[in-house]
This record gives sequence, C-alpha cells and structure tokens, in this order.
Amino acid sequence: MRYHKIPDETVRRLPVYLRGLMVSVEQGHEYISSQRLADSVGVDAWQIRKDLSYFGDFGTPGVGYNIEKLARGIKKTLRLDAIRRAALVGVGDLGSALLAYPGFRTYGLDIVAAFDVDPAKIGVVTNGVKVEDAAKIDTLRQREISLAIMAVPWEAAQATADRLVAAGVKGILNFAPCKLVAPRRVKVITLDIAMELARLPYYMPRSEQAGDM
Amino acid sequence: MRYHKIPDETVRRLPVYLRGLMVSVEQGHEYISSQRLADSVGVDAWQIRKDLSYFGDFGTPGVGYNIEKLARGIKKTLRLDAIRRAALVGVGDLGSALLAYPGFRTYGLDIVAAFDVDPAKIGVVTNGVKVEDAAKIDTLRQREISLAIMAVPWEAAQATADRLVAAGVKGILNFAPCKLVAPRRVKVITLDIAMELARLPYYMPRSEQAGDM
Repeated sequence: MRYHKIPDETVRRLPVYLRGLMVSVEQGHEYISSQRLADSVGVDAWQIRKDLSYFGDFGTPGVGYNIEKLARGIKKTLRLDAIRRAALVGVGDLGSALLAYPGFRTYGLDIVAAFDVDPAKIGVVTNGVKVEDAAKIDTLRQREISLAIMAVPWEAAQATADRLVAAGVKGILNFAPCKLVAPRRVKVITLDIAMELARLPYYMPRSEQAGDM
Repeated sequence: MRYHKIPDETVRRLPVYLRGLMVSVEQGHEYISSQRLADSVGVDAWQIRKDLSYFGDFGTPGVGYNIEKLARGIKKTLRLDAIRRAALVGVGDLGSALLAYPGFRTYGLDIVAAFDVDPAKIGVVTNGVKVEDAAKIDTLRQREISLAIMAVPWEAAQATADRLVAAGVKGILNFAPCKLVAPRRVKVITLDIAMELARLPYYMPRSEQAGDM
C-alpha cells in the first residue's frame, strides 16, 4: 500500500538507520531516542523523525523508539525481511572484492551466482560461488534471481545491463562509471566510487589548499 | 567565502552534474538546459536549478547553461581544479580494484601511495604504485598527502583512521562497514556498498516478492 510512496532520499537513509539500530542492539539497548540515533549515524534528529514518520512509527515521548520493532519495520519497508538472491556479473578485482564482502548478508542479500566472459575465470570457485560463462546470464529468470550487481568495464556496461533486463532482472547495482539505460520497471542504482571521493576536497580546510600541488 | 555554506546534499549531487556535463561536452554540446541535464543524470530539473543557484550560476533563459563555464564552476566549488594526491590503505581485493580504477583521475584525484600490513604485499608494485608498510603511514604529513582511501577490514578501521588523522590526513573515504570516530576537522565519507544494494529490493515490483525464497 505504501509502496513507492516513500521519497528516494528517505529510502537511501533507511539502511543507514538500520545499521545504527543494529549497533545499538549489540550494545544491549532496547530503546533509542531520535537524538541518540542521530548521533550514531550522523543524520539530523528532525530528519530521522520525519523519515520514520513515513511508515507510521513516531516512537514514545521520553522513551524513544523500540529498537527491535523499528528495525523490523525498516527491514519490512525495505523488503529486507527475506534473504534475496543476487547475481554478480564481472569477477575482476572489484567483483572478487564484492564476492568476499561480508556486508551483503547483513542486509538480506546473498550472491549465489557469478558470471564473467574471461575463460580463465569461468569454472573457478570464489567464496563458494562458481563463476559461470556470461552467456548463461539468460538462466537467471528460471533460477528466480532478480537482483544483479554489475562490476564490468564501462564499455561493456550497457550490453550487460540489456542482457540482465532480458533475463528478467528487476534491480541492478552498477559499479561502472556510466549511466545505464533501462526500462522504467527496472531499478538501477549506479555507485560511482570516484564521485564519492570527489566530495572530499570540498570539506578540507582552506589552509591545505595552497599546499596541494 | 562560500566555503562550508553549501548543503551536504548539494555537494553530493555536484559531482553527478559534473559527470553529466562531461558526457554532454563529449557529445559536442556547448549549452545545456537544466531539463536536459536532469534527463541525463536522473535528478529533477528544479533540484538542479536550486543546487546550481548556490554558487550563482542561473544560466541564460532559453539557452541554458554554458557547459564549459558550469563545469569549471563546479570543479572550482568542489576544489577539483587541481590534481590532489591521495593514499590508499589496504591493498586487498577492494583496494586493488580501487588502485586500478580509472575514474579517480577524472575527478582530480591521484592515488600516489598505498599501504598494507601484509609482508607479502609490501614492496609489490600495483598500477604504478609501490605498496608500503602500513607503519609508514606517518610519512604522509611530510609528503603532503592529505586525502586517504581506506579499504581495510572493519576490525582494523578505527585504528587505521586514528593513524591517518595523526599523520595529518584531512579527508577519508572509508569502505569499511562501520562508523569512524574522527576529529571534526577531518571529513569522513563512509561508503557501505551493501547499504546501497539494500535499497534495491524496495523498488522491485510486488509480484516478484512472493516468488523469492
């Protein structure tokens, strides 16, 4: 019912809150105020309250949010309450790092298939996943894998995305530094690592600037 | 003068606009409307106009923005108008991928130093950079390297950040899935890849959900 009603910016922050809540649970807390959550995740408290109000949790004044309940709510909203299977395309340096990355399962994601075009890589088992020929991307539909992570060179990115879409993939996390064209029904999130780094110099003190280069 | 006056969210989008402008230049365009830029980068046109107004470029009605001038303005605002040298800490799978990543130079960033604790990696040259003993992080100050990229396991993340801060580093791009504590003068951007993927299921059609698991 609330599907697609939550602003993208809020959806972007919900996993951040979830991580903050998980840390808090590990520390033995049962309730958390928006201010303490704010301090732990680095988002303003008013923003947190506003974001959480989208799915109806306003917390209890003076007590705060029940962490367990709130985490469950966020997971449900983000649909992370089930483990979802994902495929990786491109098992180069970055792809291998992603296969080894422990963080995915925390967010309900499990990389169960990997593809590459390099014959030297096909058949090799990395982190429990056997690399398959990229020609077999078509099998994703019958295997009911509808999420994909793309770690291919940018020249190959659009063609790879087209194949994934044709194979019934509904969501793509793209690491190639280019914008992908995909049907509206397919959600593409592009993560350009250099763009993240590009934000850093802005925050550096003025005095440093003269010294550089 | 305008330093630290632009909202974080705008700073986050400026590199995105810059990429859109660079693509447009490659296509031979000289001017671009906020609407066309919006179409190419996937941000609303009103948002683009608002963001760009922070540094005084309102474009010309009916003509749009001069691409060259706008790109220069964004680069200057983000301080990408000089090549900045950065250090990488952690040359595992992800670190190696980052060393090989061509996107950094596009945004004025050059990885000129790399560190690891693994004796097997120290001394090895990867993508033109010789991996040094992490004990030498202290030398960053005299080498005037004030940006760092951290691709270390999360257990080592805080200690690594502390060393970087002690070595005079002013900006850190952190790939470890944890929040780092650092003095206010140091800008830390944490990029948790799994969190990005965690947003994907939200956008998948309802009908797919039953089929999963």
